[in-house]
Amino acid sequence: MRALVYQGPGKISWDAVPDPVIEDATDAVVRVETTTICGSDLRIRAGELPEVKPGTVLGHEAVGEVVETGPEVHAVRPGSQAIVSCVSACGRCTFCQGNAYGQCRGGGGWNLGNTINGTQAEFVRVPFADQSTHQWPGALPGDDAVLLAEVLPTAYEVGVRNGHVSPGDTVAVVGAGPIGLATVIVARLYSPRRTIAVDLSPSRLETAARLGADAAELPGRLISDLADGPGADVAIEAAGAPESFVLCTRIVRPGGHIANIGMHGKPATLHLEALWRKNVTISTGQVDTFSTPWLLDLVVSGRLSISQLITHTFGLGRIEEAYDVFSRGVDSGALKVALHRE
Amino acid sequence: MRALVYQGPGKISWDAVPDPVIEDATDAVVRVETTTICGSDLRIRAGELPEVKPGTVLGHEAVGEVVETGPEVHAVRPGSQAIVSCVSACGRCTFCQGNAYGQCRGGGGWNLGNTINGTQAEFVRVPFADQSTHQWPGALPGDDAVLLAEVLPTAYEVGVRNGHVSPGDTVAVVGAGPIGLATVIVARLYSPRRTIAVDLSPSRLETAARLGADAAELPGRLISDLADGPGADVAIEAAGAPESFVLCTRIVRPGGHIANIGMHGKPATLHLEALWRKNVTISTGQVDTFSTPWLLDLVVSGRLSISQLITHTFGLGRIEEAYDVFSRGVDSGALKVALHRE
Amino acid sequence: MRALVYQGPGKISWDAVPDPVIEDATDAVVRVETTTICGSDLRIRAGELPEVKPGTVLGHEAVGEVVETGPEVHAVRPGSQAIVSCVSACGRCTFCQGNAYGQCRGGGGWNLGNTINGTQAEFVRVPFADQSTHQWPGALPGDDAVLLAEVLPTAYEVGVRNGHVSPGDTVAVVGAGPIGLATVIVARLYSPRRTIAVDLSPSRLETAARLGADAAELPGRLISDLADGPGADVAIEAAGAPESFVLCTRIVRPGGHIANIGMHGKPATLHLEALWRKNVTISTGQVDTFSTPWLLDLVVSGRLSISQLITHTFGLGRIEEAYDVFSRGVDSGALKVALHRE
Amino acid sequence: MRALVYQGPGKISWDAVPDPVIEDATDAVVRVETTTICGSDLRIRAGELPEVKPGTVLGHEAVGEVVETGPEVHAVRPGSQAIVSCVSACGRCTFCQGNAYGQCRGGGGWNLGNTINGTQAEFVRVPFADQSTHQWPGALPGDDAVLLAEVLPTAYEVGVRNGHVSPGDTVAVVGAGPIGLATVIVARLYSPRRTIAVDLSPSRLETAARLGADAAELPGRLISDLADGPGADVAIEAAGAPESFVLCTRIVRPGGHIANIGMHGKPATLHLEALWRKNVTISTGQVDTFSTPWLLDLVVSGRLSISQLITHTFGLGRIEEAYDVFSRGVDSGALKVALHRE
Repeated sequence: MRALVYQGPGKISWDAVPDPVIEDATDAVVRVETTTICGSDLRIRAGELPEVKPGTVLGHEAVGEVVETGPEVHAVRPGSQAIVSCVSACGRCTFCQGNAYGQCRGGGGWNLGNTINGTQAEFVRVPFADQSTHQWPGALPGDDAVLLAEVLPTAYEVGVRNGHVSPGDTVAVVGAGPIGLATVIVARLYSPRRTIAVDLSPSRLETAARLGADAAELPGRLISDLADGPGADVAIEAAGAPESFVLCTRIVRPGGHIANIGMHGKPATLHLEALWRKNVTISTGQVDTFSTPWLLDLVVSGRLSISQLITHTFGLGRIEEAYDVFSRGVDSGALKVALHRE
Repeated sequence: MRALVYQGPGKISWDAVPDPVIEDATDAVVRVETTTICGSDLRIRAGELPEVKPGTVLGHEAVGEVVETGPEVHAVRPGSQAIVSCVSACGRCTFCQGNAYGQCRGGGGWNLGNTINGTQAEFVRVPFADQSTHQWPGALPGDDAVLLAEVLPTAYEVGVRNGHVSPGDTVAVVGAGPIGLATVIVARLYSPRRTIAVDLSPSRLETAARLGADAAELPGRLISDLADGPGADVAIEAAGAPESFVLCTRIVRPGGHIANIGMHGKPATLHLEALWRKNVTISTGQVDTFSTPWLLDLVVSGRLSISQLITHTFGLGRIEEAYDVFSRGVDSGALKVALHRE
Repeated sequence: MRALVYQGPGKISWDAVPDPVIEDATDAVVRVETTTICGSDLRIRAGELPEVKPGTVLGHEAVGEVVETGPEVHAVRPGSQAIVSCVSACGRCTFCQGNAYGQCRGGGGWNLGNTINGTQAEFVRVPFADQSTHQWPGALPGDDAVLLAEVLPTAYEVGVRNGHVSPGDTVAVVGAGPIGLATVIVARLYSPRRTIAVDLSPSRLETAARLGADAAELPGRLISDLADGPGADVAIEAAGAPESFVLCTRIVRPGGHIANIGMHGKPATLHLEALWRKNVTISTGQVDTFSTPWLLDLVVSGRLSISQLITHTFGLGRIEEAYDVFSRGVDSGALKVALHRE
Repeated sequence: MRALVYQGPGKISWDAVPDPVIEDATDAVVRVETTTICGSDLRIRAGELPEVKPGTVLGHEAVGEVVETGPEVHAVRPGSQAIVSCVSACGRCTFCQGNAYGQCRGGGGWNLGNTINGTQAEFVRVPFADQSTHQWPGALPGDDAVLLAEVLPTAYEVGVRNGHVSPGDTVAVVGAGPIGLATVIVARLYSPRRTIAVDLSPSRLETAARLGADAAELPGRLISDLADGPGADVAIEAAGAPESFVLCTRIVRPGGHIANIGMHGKPATLHLEALWRKNVTISTGQVDTFSTPWLLDLVVSGRLSISQLITHTFGLGRIEEAYDVFSRGVDSGALKVALHRE
């Protein structure tokens, strides 16, 4: 088959590689119908995640058809339409018992496109398939369904839930990329009073306003609005930069929540000299995807409308071009790009 | 009367000052029976809190007898024995409605010994007396009662509660000074499996063991125990130093809590490059003292034994000597020092 | 002045009574601009609440202008536009400290139109005015504002919050009268998947559908839908009848919540022989009105649209006619009726 | 092998029956080392649970050695020492994902000694063995370990946790049988101010006092203490009788919790005419055993001392005599009886 292979810092290529096969009794092999590219893939391409070895097939989001299953797989069978979760879960360790699948100590966690071959390929081997796939309802377009693999659960679990978004809240989302905007959309389930998207890029801010942010602002203006005023009830870091995190700690109100979603490569400064007496709560976290079935139900029942997050589609064979468009999102207007089986 | 007056960086003195009088209808004046010194008083003396103006009487903890009340004070009257809370609360602002008295926007918050004259004096004016004093039960010794003014609510609210200490937890308390050890004691209400006190001082560690810590360790050993192993469920910073905070972020387990109690004068480094995927929760906070009645009930009913926290007593007139002994706690063995009316 | 006076079981009349005066230092007197009638007023009229003595002015909901205040009232002054809360709160007892104002042990609780004269009058004395009134924003019509006095906080606190309504939930509201329908409206803040209104009256069900219930059903059909199927995540009793409560216990799913709002005059049967193993949570409660400022903010900011709940308006002098229309709501189509100063 | 077989209402016998065998790939067969008898076994014997068919081997609690495993069992293997949980869990259904194993819709739930053969036998087939057994630590005596199979998780999950027992609480446990007394013991983890055991039997009350209840009282005295006074923060029904439940609703304070543990055969009267305005929360529930690993850790680490709950031991062959002693617990002084392999 062909797949998008990480070749070391700065290099990826669409290569011929061996087809995946069942290795463990709990594996499934899925023919990828739709996959997508994540900001973390760009960080891997840049060589920022040394845990990813050259030769690894990238990608951790997909929907497709199960083509083969190990003998201990019962929830899906060949022919099943499945959403492949970005997190694999053994289902038995202490962390999995507590629904913290991303912290799995039994061989799961973020494996796909990280420690094992991923989903940006014609086929993918999915470990612990019973816990790591979800039924893909026939009526749901693949472009919507693939957002259930990582984007929506991340926005909800790490942003909205960890941030305790509640009706009437002022919510500031710092970083108006795909995850940040997904967070804006998911936050609406809880009827915030005002959702403010913050970004350095005017074009991203326009997009944010179009997707329903009540205000879309450059950081400077936000600081004078919030840091010197009542503050945000919830500040969500969705940019993965130290200065964005610091901004969140400045704009949050006493008693408020800061939820970090961004993947960071560097430390940030925590201004404890100001924060020690401010009663703030800061959360970090990798997605666990425990909320996928619930979010899927909300999408299918029409309570959560996410189609606008996919801005570009490509045939899978054009994935290198898709990486280019996605990585220039600020200019290209790309949020999530969908790649389809050809 | 005489009082302990902050004279500018590095200087305090036991001076004659005017007696306090009722200024607002909700004030009470209390004759101080017992007061004590807090680590924050040392920081004020050192000039680290510029909000404290020279000429201010220090101290924010006391028990004593009410001698005069304003016309709108109803919960106490002259003759009432009262615990004076370190936090004053207007009782009506949004923060007070949410029990966040430390964040009061109606004129309260940390006033005593900070923005107005405090309790290290023969008399003290207590604003918002109805919300800022608690009945001092006759049978409770003043040395115990004065710990309800700040130490115990801080240990509980900012440490144990914010840290979500639960039965079976491994709790690491970094900083074995008075507040840290009070936290060890209060944490026991929730039956942790193991409470570990950490400090740089061997003598403080001995004290910690005597007060009931299951282990008392130097930071280095703790790191090898926890940071490289399962981690602490709860790490509580009670030292107010950047390196202690960083230690907490290293030893906490994925999914665990870091509760900052320490008063910080400098920023700390937040290692988001490691923490972003660790599912940790960090809380900060100034005490609100909403838990004082509940803690008082636990002390009076014998469920919480705190007498060992007071190690030295002095007559109030010897308070300068008491500052000296308290500030050299590591050598002198002092935890909290009690100052009594003479 | 004139007021609606309870004259003993079955009898109310619009009578001349003495004007209210300031009795306690924390009282305010309010000139009633808009008041309304509650289901509980009908129960009082019927003689079902023996605590209400003949001669009492009824009513516990109002908005109006403060005309006089006691010396300890600071939050409002003569000329203030105020929402009068149905619950009075001393603000100092243990229950008030915990925001359980409805359970106040310091002289508050449900006083108005119950143990003291109420709001269905030209003027009303409001005890503990600082804690028992809220600023009535000028731009908000009185017919909306009066719903903040009791209806909306009850729907939220006792129904939606106690019932733990969450995004994606199936919520069944049993009893499609004013409170039930207010609950349907408030529940929408949490994006339930499906809200089902249940009533015996087809006309009430039509109203429910018009106000946004996803389904509006007779009890029988609901049972076959839910009791024999997956069940409701939340069942809210808003009828105050034993059989409605029993219905709720039948339709709730294992692990679900039953929130009782209804005022009951008789016991219900609790089928513990079925429920003991069903993991259900049942809550009861009188409104505390702690959520009024938050709900007011949601209404003012346009996040909560409630105007449809007022179906009829009358001049205050026609209140006996209004009682008649309101009490025949099933036939008259009346939900809440507003009474305006003339 | 031999096993205790339910022969229809009123009849049980120690019979020869076929040895259990692996039926499903996720089964294990365990040789029973220690088992015990539950109050529910007495109800089954009395014919009160029609779901239990004559011919069923009773018992749902055991520890022992795994002797055979199906091909999909990985957590244990032949030779493993295991605690057999009273609840079997498929691990995959929505309820299992939410740790509500007792409500499993994938074939689990309360199976053992109910819908399939149970543990009062020389061998038992355990379905879903990976999710339904826990490692039995070598150092823990079987008589302690067998209490982890049902008694302790029930006392914690359904009593202490559902009842929200907190430090300083007054906790009333109505019914001082084995489960009630286990609840008294587990509640102590949360440092209640006062735990009151209530029973009709003076001998049971003596036992309660010996096991650490602060007060042990007849119902009548309790009512005058609590119902007419401040009330209990938590009232736990552990008797399974309508009048015990009603007592709980009378003694709980406004804002308090009633946690029903008892298995009920009849409805109770819910006095909504009094409770509607009392802000109480009532929970019911069958044990899920999600807390077993945590409780096991607390027992092994010495934080939870439970040995006194086993009052009598018998060889397994004398189980009919053990039923007799257990069923006459009020007279015989029996709490839990342990049956050992001979």
